[in-house]
Amino acid sequence: MILRPATRAELPAVLALLADERRVVDPATVRVTEAYERAFAAIEADPRNEMLVLTDPDGTVLGCLQATYIPGLGKGGAERALIEAVRIRADHRGAGLGRRLMELAADRARARGCALVQLTSDKKRAEAHRFYASLGYARSHEGFKLTL
Amino acid sequence: MILRPATRAELPAVLALLADERRVVDPATVRVTEAYERAFAAIEADPRNEMLVLTDPDGTVLGCLQATYIPGLGKGGAERALIEAVRIRADHRGAGLGRRLMELAADRARARGCALVQLTSDKKRAEAHRFYASLGYARSHEGFKLTL
Repeated sequence: MILRPATRAELPAVLALLADERRVVDPATVRVTEAYERAFAAIEADPRNEMLVLTDPDGTVLGCLQATYIPGLGKGGAERALIEAVRIRADHRGAGLGRRLMELAADRARARGCALVQLTSDKKRAEAHRFYASLGYARSHEGFKLTL
Repeated sequence: MILRPATRAELPAVLALLADERRVVDPATVRVTEAYERAFAAIEADPRNEMLVLTDPDGTVLGCLQATYIPGLGKGGAERALIEAVRIRADHRGAGLGRRLMELAADRARARGCALVQLTSDKKRAEAHRFYASLGYARSHEGFKLTL
């Protein structure tokens, strides 16, 4: 299992993962709109954003997450990593891949010099909360969102 | 009241605000380390990060927050704004400045095309939670942090 930035050719596979709630979505059926193209290009061009994919030895995309590395004046001036859009393909859940994905992402943030990894998870997703706690994350904050 | 990116000359005032828990810290007493210099320069140079200050008509810094604009594949490819390090100077609290600071930051994110503003707040800060709810923020997520 390898964690690395997604290539443009893998954008359909990433969008399929993001659309996959309970069943596998075929990347060939995903419509890659111009807005998605632009957003992916923006992530790719930004040295502080990565759309990371977890791939098996054949190069098949089985998981993804987005990492944003945020410079700041806290933590002695170290960056913090924000993780969003964590997904494991529906037919590969329950096999420890999510754990591997999160561990590799934390390793990557640590290697970069980040002092902290942070994320939020919908209050309804109790299973995800247990998962993050089992990885050592402290459930220390309330997460607020305002739609503009 | 104006919200705008802090200048390098205002870094001591921003660090004073970040150190101000219950009483005003004199910017002249703040030690601006090389790590802070580097972090501020990184924020200033990054088109997706801003250290914003709220200033009175004399240009005195009375509040701050950091905004990070995150490109992503959700929300139709729109950016989301992450807000961190929200502070109002201790001797100016309770006068609506925090509300003004947050409203101006949301206006700025909206003008940029962001679909969402998100933030987390320590579970112990019940007063802050009421404040964000009063601004229309939904307390929809659990916030997790992992120290590296």
